[in-house]
Amino acid sequence: MTAVGIDAIEIWTGKLQLDLPGTFAPAKGEDPEKYTKGLGLETSSFPDAYEDIVTMGANAAKRLMDRKGLDPQDIGRIDVATESAFDNSKPVSTYIAGCLEQVYDGDFHHANKGERKFACVAGTQSIDDAYNWIKAGRNRGRAALVIATDTALYARGDPGEATQGAGAVAMLITEEPSVVELSTEQGYGSADETDFLKPNQQFPSVDGKRSMQVYLARMREALTDFESVAWDTHPSDFAYIPFHTPFPGMVRKAGLLGYRHMIRDTEIEDALEGRIGRQPREEDFEDWESYEEAIRAYMDELKETEEYRSWYADAIDPTLNIARRVGNWYTGSVHVARASALRHAADNDVDLAGQKLLVASYGSGAQAEIHAETVAEGWDEEVGALTIDEQLERRYDLSYDEYEQVHDRHNHDMDVELEEFTQPEGEFVFTGWGRMSERKYDYVE
Amino acid sequence: MTAVGIDAIEIWTGKLQLDLPGTFAPAKGEDPEKYTKGLGLETSSFPDAYEDIVTMGANAAKRLMDRKGLDPQDIGRIDVATESAFDNSKPVSTYIAGCLEQVYDGDFHHANKGERKFACVAGTQSIDDAYNWIKAGRNRGRAALVIATDTALYARGDPGEATQGAGAVAMLITEEPSVVELSTEQGYGSADETDFLKPNQQFPSVDGKRSMQVYLARMREALTDFESVAWDTHPSDFAYIPFHTPFPGMVRKAGLLGYRHMIRDTEIEDALEGRIGRQPREEDFEDWESYEEAIRAYMDELKETEEYRSWYADAIDPTLNIARRVGNWYTGSVHVARASALRHAADNDVDLAGQKLLVASYGSGAQAEIHAETVAEGWDEEVGALTIDEQLERRYDLSYDEYEQVHDRHNHDMDVELEEFTQPEGEFVFTGWGRMSERKYDYVE
Repeated sequence: MTAVGIDAIEIWTGKLQLDLPGTFAPAKGEDPEKYTKGLGLETSSFPDAYEDIVTMGANAAKRLMDRKGLDPQDIGRIDVATESAFDNSKPVSTYIAGCLEQVYDGDFHHANKGERKFACVAGTQSIDDAYNWIKAGRNRGRAALVIATDTALYARGDPGEATQGAGAVAMLITEEPSVVELSTEQGYGSADETDFLKPNQQFPSVDGKRSMQVYLARMREALTDFESVAWDTHPSDFAYIPFHTPFPGMVRKAGLLGYRHMIRDTEIEDALEGRIGRQPREEDFEDWESYEEAIRAYMDELKETEEYRSWYADAIDPTLNIARRVGNWYTGSVHVARASALRHAADNDVDLAGQKLLVASYGSGAQAEIHAETVAEGWDEEVGALTIDEQLERRYDLSYDEYEQVHDRHNHDMDVELEEFTQPEGEFVFTGWGRMSERKYDYVE
Repeated sequence: MTAVGIDAIEIWTGKLQLDLPGTFAPAKGEDPEKYTKGLGLETSSFPDAYEDIVTMGANAAKRLMDRKGLDPQDIGRIDVATESAFDNSKPVSTYIAGCLEQVYDGDFHHANKGERKFACVAGTQSIDDAYNWIKAGRNRGRAALVIATDTALYARGDPGEATQGAGAVAMLITEEPSVVELSTEQGYGSADETDFLKPNQQFPSVDGKRSMQVYLARMREALTDFESVAWDTHPSDFAYIPFHTPFPGMVRKAGLLGYRHMIRDTEIEDALEGRIGRQPREEDFEDWESYEEAIRAYMDELKETEEYRSWYADAIDPTLNIARRVGNWYTGSVHVARASALRHAADNDVDLAGQKLLVASYGSGAQAEIHAETVAEGWDEEVGALTIDEQLERRYDLSYDEYEQVHDRHNHDMDVELEEFTQPEGEFVFTGWGRMSERKYDYVE
């Protein structure tokens, strides 16, 4: 069978930043370490007055098409994953295609456009659909463009406010991938949960504690399901494990859980036995609660071991470098984590081609998806083309008052004019509403 | 390659009906024929007080699973297509899975759940994704459940009010389909259009005239694209051509356009030449307007010919039998049209196995998708199991006052209690909101 996977990635951050320890914490009267140590976040990204999910997605897509030398007729499918849509019928992908048609010769009239929604997991679902479309032989040699774009806002004063973020990730899915090849095998952990909802509202209602439990429970289920069709995973199987990253602190918990699962019945568990004992086995306990308590105690010791700390530093920590500086991008988050890891490898001259990643996506509501990826020849050139560092450096640093104005500007229930903080150049911008209340866009040279 | 397609179909109508000529027209002071002759509609379906997109979808899915003897573990994928979602993050498929898990042993925890949005075309997109998933070898022998469910309401007084409807279509996609096998070939006609929008609102803003033009333009484009990868279509190729049916009058226009396209350069055009001349060719005209005028004149004559009328009566009219009685179900509409045609064939003892359908889906915003289907052995048994006639007969017939109460009840911006008109039995019902404002459901024996 053909190798199918990700051929190119582009990341576009919202152009404004909020400094969490420096600006947000003082304004809230909080200890800055609550954000830096607790959540693991330094700054978050916000869209400027002329940015939204369409401009960020279209700008990421344009950069990707330009870099790969693509015309519209090379693209047979444009899927947008978002939970920030502003229309209940017309998909964001049509707006993005409309933007791109302003600047390219030709059009996307024979491309299948769509939109997927499932909290933060829909970006990965869209990649999977694109993979299947190519494997099914329906792509006529064309590539799929998958765009994960979100403006993740919470109500002001909500505990989630510190985890906000905004940006887009565009990915090209082809049959000759230069970044990663996707595994056919997938694992799912999925249940009807009410951890995080947006019932006819823009900002989420979140049950924070439940949300973290559900994330871990669905991940464990997905990993077990993946192993049932792939193989028993081992920490040494994967160079990196990018997780969906609502905030880096969540991934610390997930990484520990995953490590415990993977080392069970391996030489690593044996080696640790003398220091922290063997893992508790459910069958040795009379009830679930005492088993859970024993597991927690084991994990508390496990996370202090050199083995775990070294694995975490190698396989997980590099996936969080960008997230720390941008916050949660919802559908784009796990794809930012992958890019972060690959860039870390490139920066450190790691010979990654042929090595594997385990990619762990998650959406509240709730579903985890886990699949493996094999890094392709050419990955380092692709990753070297990312401009995310420059973009992050160029962000305008908001005062707290300015942050509040920006938050209001992007609140769908408010109608707030706002002077832009940055100057658009060579990009799509939002210009206002048309006669049908549709959002309008122009390309600024 | 494996044959992949639709193995079973179930239709669930909202349990209330509004009589358009008998109740709606008099209340509006309109000529009843505006609805019966102009739009082609007799009655429309509405959800009772305890119904919504989740109950209708779950009830259709349960009936399908029961009839096919399926357990949750037989299902590897549940995709819901809707433009009536009530949550901006959590997908309807998780609610439907939650309902089904109340009544079956086992669960859907290893099934991929999702939600697609693109006006009325997302049901077909979800079928296509399920087809691709199976063809890509990722289904592990399991089937996909695709559910198209919508409550199509317009603001009261809107010209679209007469075309409302509510219901769900559940379809099982497998590698041994008993209803139809899908073609690998697909044609797309897709553009960034502002014909029909719901910008942060439940009820659509519609540019009626533009909407009809766009429907026809995108259909023509999709048919040309389909022919570029499949073959030059001919009216005799297809037993039936189910179209997306916002109202039957729209399909009359689309059918005529399709017929004209298909007979060009065929023996049918030759046979008609003596009576109505040959079709105008664009290259013979100085400008697009005079060409369009000539085409319109030709079509006016074409639609009166015996050839066209006979083809329309055979291939198109039978697709509209159910739509006339239920209105527009948005994502479910084209699938109701297919079922309507197949049932007509079964009622008339047509030997359909091996014959082809051309299925023409459409969503505003805008995109048409056209593919072919081959009717499978066993189709008549599947279609014979449909209970839509009994369901339609059992609907409660609303007075105009009652219709207004029902409309308010399902208006997301209102909070209206309403006594139910019908008695639920052996079905899922909406029971109210939970602590996170999530919608809650029970199964009523």
